[in-house]
Amino acid sequence: MDEIKVLSPATVANVVCGFDCLGFALEKPYDEMTVRRIDERIVRIINRDDFGLPTDPAKNVAGVALTAMLAKAGADFGVEVEITKHIKPGSGIGSSAASSGGAVVAANRLLGDRFSKLELVEFAMEGEKLASGSRHADNVAPCIFGGFTLVRSTYPLDIVSLDFPLLFVTVIHPQIEIKTAEARAILPKEVPLKTAIRQWGNLGSLVAGLAQGDYGLISRSIEDFIVEPVRKSLIPGLDNVKFASLAAGSLGGGISGSGPSMFMLSETREIAEAVELAMLQVYSKTQIEFNTYVSEINPNGVRFFVS
Amino acid sequence: MDEIKVLSPATVANVVCGFDCLGFALEKPYDEMTVRRIDERIVRIINRDDFGLPTDPAKNVAGVALTAMLAKAGADFGVEVEITKHIKPGSGIGSSAASSGGAVVAANRLLGDRFSKLELVEFAMEGEKLASGSRHADNVAPCIFGGFTLVRSTYPLDIVSLDFPLLFVTVIHPQIEIKTAEARAILPKEVPLKTAIRQWGNLGSLVAGLAQGDYGLISRSIEDFIVEPVRKSLIPGLDNVKFASLAAGSLGGGISGSGPSMFMLSETREIAEAVELAMLQVYSKTQIEFNTYVSEINPNGVRFFVS
Repeated sequence: MDEIKVLSPATVANVVCGFDCLGFALEKPYDEMTVRRIDERIVRIINRDDFGLPTDPAKNVAGVALTAMLAKAGADFGVEVEITKHIKPGSGIGSSAASSGGAVVAANRLLGDRFSKLELVEFAMEGEKLASGSRHADNVAPCIFGGFTLVRSTYPLDIVSLDFPLLFVTVIHPQIEIKTAEARAILPKEVPLKTAIRQWGNLGSLVAGLAQGDYGLISRSIEDFIVEPVRKSLIPGLDNVKFASLAAGSLGGGISGSGPSMFMLSETREIAEAVELAMLQVYSKTQIEFNTYVSEINPNGVRFFVS
Repeated sequence: MDEIKVLSPATVANVVCGFDCLGFALEKPYDEMTVRRIDERIVRIINRDDFGLPTDPAKNVAGVALTAMLAKAGADFGVEVEITKHIKPGSGIGSSAASSGGAVVAANRLLGDRFSKLELVEFAMEGEKLASGSRHADNVAPCIFGGFTLVRSTYPLDIVSLDFPLLFVTVIHPQIEIKTAEARAILPKEVPLKTAIRQWGNLGSLVAGLAQGDYGLISRSIEDFIVEPVRKSLIPGLDNVKFASLAAGSLGGGISGSGPSMFMLSETREIAEAVELAMLQVYSKTQIEFNTYVSEINPNGVRFFVS
């Protein structure tokens, strides 16, 4: 096989009480990527969208991930990657992770699936390092593994796939820019032990609620005492969006990644669509442009596309 | 029925990365308690052991729990409680929780099981308040619910029963006294956010490992970055006990409650017994007297005894 096409999904990281470790994959939006074997031992990037991302493989997240992977494999060939992004860069739903994650999953197929998913995450993390300056797996882990993932440890990398029940996600993406540096800078360096305990009690309970399919427990556990209180100043209307979404029947939610997108979880598609309507009503009163998405949790991550 | 006999189990709280929320119940040791209906509307305590605990119900943990419960029930009778403790007070394996938890479970049967387990925990927490000054559920929750419990929140009380696989526990109780005030005083008031994240990543993973019966994941997740590093100075030989136990095949463990007892988890009874031997070898080189126990996890908590 000399050409592989994949659909690489958006992801939500920093899932409320699971800041810096818990994430999940969405069914949509997703990027379309075709990775093709070429004789030249190079990585060539072709962008088929209007985002104007770099085509120099050393400056492109998919490029650096693929370069690391081909080097590790000692491949005697190169790859050409055509990327049609639908996930807007800077949206907070894992745009860079979709690029690097999709690229390595596709190229791995060209290499006869020689690398494990965990190894693919390691390669894709090179892309995250380029995009954000930190080698984190919060988005690439759910992008590649699918479902809900917990990054237990980064060094050494340890990724836990969680059991979870049927869940629907409503995402709203306000078209504003959040500077990652600012979102990082306002985080506290230290937190009260008592607050940390409440947070880890919630995360443990959320994992249990997901495993047991206990929607009530999931709902009670989705509360972030540490990050949301400081970051919400960066996200216009967060409180109103949450309030209206909960009133529409959502289980709960919060900031996606470091924003500006927000997400809410619901038990049924009907509720998730009612939540979308509620978000729409809140945001149509602002001057800010926005997109919304309703999606199931994507259980498989990057998907091979057979045309 | 006018007389109820129960066996009330020892419990392990502060389970490593689950400080202040995660606990589990042991099959042994346990206290024996008989609660009997009397016409006088009082609580009478009869101690059948040599620990010299108070018999004034206002100063006895079972007494205050029962007093709160009978008042709430508007009972037109009183109870007499005979207690034979086998769990030494101050051991760090939930001695006071066994007294108050066993008492309220037994008395609830006399009341026609009118209270839920959650309500029983609330009553038993009155005993913990008397014993330690703080109204916590860390030990009474697993004592009454059995198995592994997560106290997600104390106000309002929210207790999560976790799924877990077959596990064996080895406990060593060095006969030394740890002053609760000292164990509290050395805790940091604030912790670095980065460390808190590592801790909650571990707790989430431990809950997932228990739910999935993944012993490898359980083992990797059992690490406490916050409390054990400061409290281990109070527990003679903790590092040696852990090292020897891990070498004997244990999955991991740590301080039980605020000590002095330590516990280690194992996948089989054979390993748990090898761990006991390893602990014995470490501690027989000290001048400190000690007891050891090997026990399964107790899935049901307080047990009704039918003679």
